[in-house]
Amino acid sequence: MSSLADAAGTLDFAGRGAAMHALAGELFPICRSITGDGVRETLRIVGQGVPLEVHEIPTGTPVLDWSVPKEWNIRDAWVKDPSGRKIIDFSRSNLEVLNYSAPVHSTMSLEELRPHLYTLPDQPTRTPYKTSYYNETWGFCLSQERLDRLGEGDYEVRIDSSLEAGHLSYGEIFLPGRETGEILLSCHVCHPSLANDNLSGVVVLRQLAEILAGVDRRYGYRLIFAPGTIGAITWLAQNQQRLGLIRHGLVVAGVGDRGDFSYKKTRRGSELDLIVARVLRESGRPHRVFEFSPDGYDERQYASPGIDLSVGRLSRTPYGSYPEYHTSGDDLDFITPGSLAESLETLLAILATLEEAVYYENLSPKGEPQLGRRGLYSAMGGHRDKLERETAMLWVLNMSDGSHCLAAIAERAQLPLELVGDVAETLADHALLRRLTVE
Amino acid sequence: MSSLADAAGTLDFAGRGAAMHALAGELFPICRSITGDGVRETLRIVGQGVPLEVHEIPTGTPVLDWSVPKEWNIRDAWVKDPSGRKIIDFSRSNLEVLNYSAPVHSTMSLEELRPHLYTLPDQPTRTPYKTSYYNETWGFCLSQERLDRLGEGDYEVRIDSSLEAGHLSYGEIFLPGRETGEILLSCHVCHPSLANDNLSGVVVLRQLAEILAGVDRRYGYRLIFAPGTIGAITWLAQNQQRLGLIRHGLVVAGVGDRGDFSYKKTRRGSELDLIVARVLRESGRPHRVFEFSPDGYDERQYASPGIDLSVGRLSRTPYGSYPEYHTSGDDLDFITPGSLAESLETLLAILATLEEAVYYENLSPKGEPQLGRRGLYSAMGGHRDKLERETAMLWVLNMSDGSHCLAAIAERAQLPLELVGDVAETLADHALLRRLTVE
Amino acid sequence: MSSLADAAGTLDFAGRGAAMHALAGELFPICRSITGDGVRETLRIVGQGVPLEVHEIPTGTPVLDWSVPKEWNIRDAWVKDPSGRKIIDFSRSNLEVLNYSAPVHSTMSLEELRPHLYTLPDQPTRTPYKTSYYNETWGFCLSQERLDRLGEGDYEVRIDSSLEAGHLSYGEIFLPGRETGEILLSCHVCHPSLANDNLSGVVVLRQLAEILAGVDRRYGYRLIFAPGTIGAITWLAQNQQRLGLIRHGLVVAGVGDRGDFSYKKTRRGSELDLIVARVLRESGRPHRVFEFSPDGYDERQYASPGIDLSVGRLSRTPYGSYPEYHTSGDDLDFITPGSLAESLETLLAILATLEEAVYYENLSPKGEPQLGRRGLYSAMGGHRDKLERETAMLWVLNMSDGSHCLAAIAERAQLPLELVGDVAETLADHALLRRLTVE
Repeated sequence: MSSLADAAGTLDFAGRGAAMHALAGELFPICRSITGDGVRETLRIVGQGVPLEVHEIPTGTPVLDWSVPKEWNIRDAWVKDPSGRKIIDFSRSNLEVLNYSAPVHSTMSLEELRPHLYTLPDQPTRTPYKTSYYNETWGFCLSQERLDRLGEGDYEVRIDSSLEAGHLSYGEIFLPGRETGEILLSCHVCHPSLANDNLSGVVVLRQLAEILAGVDRRYGYRLIFAPGTIGAITWLAQNQQRLGLIRHGLVVAGVGDRGDFSYKKTRRGSELDLIVARVLRESGRPHRVFEFSPDGYDERQYASPGIDLSVGRLSRTPYGSYPEYHTSGDDLDFITPGSLAESLETLLAILATLEEAVYYENLSPKGEPQLGRRGLYSAMGGHRDKLERETAMLWVLNMSDGSHCLAAIAERAQLPLELVGDVAETLADHALLRRLTVE
Repeated sequence: MSSLADAAGTLDFAGRGAAMHALAGELFPICRSITGDGVRETLRIVGQGVPLEVHEIPTGTPVLDWSVPKEWNIRDAWVKDPSGRKIIDFSRSNLEVLNYSAPVHSTMSLEELRPHLYTLPDQPTRTPYKTSYYNETWGFCLSQERLDRLGEGDYEVRIDSSLEAGHLSYGEIFLPGRETGEILLSCHVCHPSLANDNLSGVVVLRQLAEILAGVDRRYGYRLIFAPGTIGAITWLAQNQQRLGLIRHGLVVAGVGDRGDFSYKKTRRGSELDLIVARVLRESGRPHRVFEFSPDGYDERQYASPGIDLSVGRLSRTPYGSYPEYHTSGDDLDFITPGSLAESLETLLAILATLEEAVYYENLSPKGEPQLGRRGLYSAMGGHRDKLERETAMLWVLNMSDGSHCLAAIAERAQLPLELVGDVAETLADHALLRRLTVE
Repeated sequence: MSSLADAAGTLDFAGRGAAMHALAGELFPICRSITGDGVRETLRIVGQGVPLEVHEIPTGTPVLDWSVPKEWNIRDAWVKDPSGRKIIDFSRSNLEVLNYSAPVHSTMSLEELRPHLYTLPDQPTRTPYKTSYYNETWGFCLSQERLDRLGEGDYEVRIDSSLEAGHLSYGEIFLPGRETGEILLSCHVCHPSLANDNLSGVVVLRQLAEILAGVDRRYGYRLIFAPGTIGAITWLAQNQQRLGLIRHGLVVAGVGDRGDFSYKKTRRGSELDLIVARVLRESGRPHRVFEFSPDGYDERQYASPGIDLSVGRLSRTPYGSYPEYHTSGDDLDFITPGSLAESLETLLAILATLEEAVYYENLSPKGEPQLGRRGLYSAMGGHRDKLERETAMLWVLNMSDGSHCLAAIAERAQLPLELVGDVAETLADHALLRRLTVE
């Protein structure tokens, strides 16, 4: 079986980008929430062709400080104006209903209705995305322009939803590796018709699962498709004994827009931060690296003080920094096949780096070993095109004291990881380094 | 009793500024030195209305490496020119006599007199401030312009002073707190008619004492009004057993001029540095923060290597950086009621921060606790005006591992301390945090 | 005997610069390599007037991971064009033969000859410097312009060299000191007619040896004149028991060009880095300080992970950063007497700093000691010209906890080392400091 790096090298990223965008299109109309049939339908589609296990956790189950909420399902929702025309219609866009709305069927004046209507005065043509998971109420979302056109009279309001004991559903794909260590990859699947946040993360991880399934894996890969916050918390609650196996992880969210990449560092500071910084720099793509902060997506949970895993976050434009965020503007046109493909490629490059992360011990630490005798050094002094390779050997020899993986060395040396890895293997072949293996 | 923060919030700072400037005016003419009746008179006035205890330490008492010097007192001093006119006159300004001058009464030529005359050639209209505490001599200070006008002839010289066994006087106000820990506040009271250096510090601490006396105090406050160097050393010598109680401290000096604030960090590096940086930034006032150095005012003593307290220094323009420093230009016009009031306000803000410094432990450190269930989180996802509050909660939860006080968290998070403190209380009310109390 | 600092103060640097340049001129034509009579002749000339011991290590001797190579000697080398004219001629410049070429005598077509010809296409008028120490082959170097003029026909090729069992030669000057600690100074002597790289280092260390021989020395000085890499490795192999005595060291190379100074830090980080930074700053000369990297000159060997001495590198323009590097452009005009003299002066300043490096312990660490009583402090407060001296005393007292040498204190305090050293002696004379002496 080929390695992840090899597999990534042969991928048709344009085709993968198109496939991911198409899958986002298929998932887009589904009304997802933190529970309910929308999530189940999403997981069913995502799980086609990959070993996705759906976990159904009953309402009321204690999960860390939380408990699993009631399950929400919705069949229809609309508002009819005094003439009987549906001026708000869930069947047109599921954003038009306040997510997790309790059922209602009533007729009321515009004045009575208005407190239940949400708009974006600053973006008058867009419909906001609103939720009320943990506070039982009902409501509708619409554009400010539409709201402004509503006249007085009796409005018929109907939300055909249910909020009852049921389950929280999340999906998990576990692909075992040769070693016991695991890499955690997590995306949230609770947002309805929003493309970048976070169908982008869902389709990238789905595509990734397919690729990972077909390669030789050093580490186990645990891909979590869960509702935001409560889903990650539920997973943590059910996997506390397993956390020690997690070597590193990434939250993947907001990876479909046209913006630059961004990486948010781990709370504890780990080699992952160096590795991702290196991959992003080597990609040549503009990017930014942010210090850890306790807000954001589910890295919040993975980096809570009692958990504190080495988990960072990969995004493009950071959430909340683009006007389309949590509005109807975050649609299928807002994400592009090319951006999704680039994000997949970047993620693969990070994971390939982890797969190949190796530690060596210099067995000839006194003076430089004679590289030339072993054919490792340009016999012709001054030949410049071998200079970088020779420099890489010197860095590896100098820093291979057991406490620096090759990626850390590459980052310190500002050299390509491939080069550093290649020379390390060569040096090990010549018994100058001893590769440190997992205990 | 109200807290310091509350009291500070209701203060009439304009009135306090005027009162402080008036007190500086009352103290200005007094001829202070490191010992003597000028210090006693100063302490008497400063002590009116506050529980200031005057310590009288006999000449010759060993204090650390030093011993208490002879006491200096002066009644009159003048120089008469050949025509009998008093061209130098202590009664006009006590700067005109070299501080700690031995008595003299003699007639001499200008040539003989000249080595005893001190001027500022670079600032020809100003009289310098000069001392000779530990080297028995006599002298006068005058402007270069006046010196240049002196003609040949016989000059009658008179200094009616005494340098005899007596006492070193310093004042100490101790205001006990609920906890055993103490905050040290120290100013020097040895300079005669100089306003910024350091009547400004004296009147600000005097005003502070009055305010502190009227509030509920968590910490004990120990305000030292002592002659520079020898006074701080004497206090240290007499309080060696008590130093362990000092949590933090500030030297307050040069706080009346119109310049920007400056803070000099502690030698050891402590949360005080973060707290002061935070208060200064939040004030919106221009300011600078300096690394520790072993020169300066009495922070030198408090940060000597065998003492090494967490004591910084609050000033406006650093000493020596303004031309009026140690000259007759440092007069009552050089300091302003507004500047004194701002300094008092800043100091109160620092102390209020210390008073309210709290440590918490996250009792729900695995994953984020469910804030929404407790009404702590915007039930309506995406509501932006609650975002900062929620971010603050996340920071407090994430960093409350017992090693970060709220101010340190606020500084790291770049959030208002009030907000961070408020959410911490709220979180504690909901049993998500446990407040760590003094053992 | 005078101290190094005193001796440096009386030197005629213009004369020394001229002498160093003249010696470089004398050494320039010699065909050096990593072994052979060129190195011996170089060491013979360098050793005149100084106690240079030549070590001859037999071919095949194991040295760390290496073994001493065969000895190379060359008498003549040329290429005659079809008309019988010598178009390449070792007797004109020893750069024209590939260093370490095996013997050859043959006639061949231009096509056959061409793979053995090395040029610099980017610098068409210059001849490159090429070596093939550890791969037995032969070749010639010439300018691209000359290569372009060669026509078809039969070329007679002759290299009269030998590559046989013999010795590796290196020179070592050891000048004992009062203390057992040693300072290592190392330059490479293997490059033939190249002036900056590294006759500059050779002549500066030769000049330094003469100066050091005439002064009182605290430390022993071990000056190594050895072929690059294999020479340093051979020295390390033969001196493993002695490495614990090396306190600090410098590789000196590329110190004759007109560029700014550069210093490459030690691998481990030591006070040497502070000391050199201080000397360079105090010199007022433009300079750069680089972090450690494992490439470069023989600091690579001295900083290999199993050796890790406190050895930095002093250069002017870093190797490889100037177009003349390893070309015929690195000739006697590329180095100047003035640059050599400046480099010598800088090196002397660094060594003088090490010679005078002292550690003290503050015997009066609680509060400041009373400097005035001991006549150490300006009795006349406010006298500005003594301010810097007093500041220096405060820094020394504050930081003399046994872990900071005076130079480190001076660097931290940003004060002249002479001043800091002077006040420390004064403070020690007054029993305020205890000088820590070598165990």
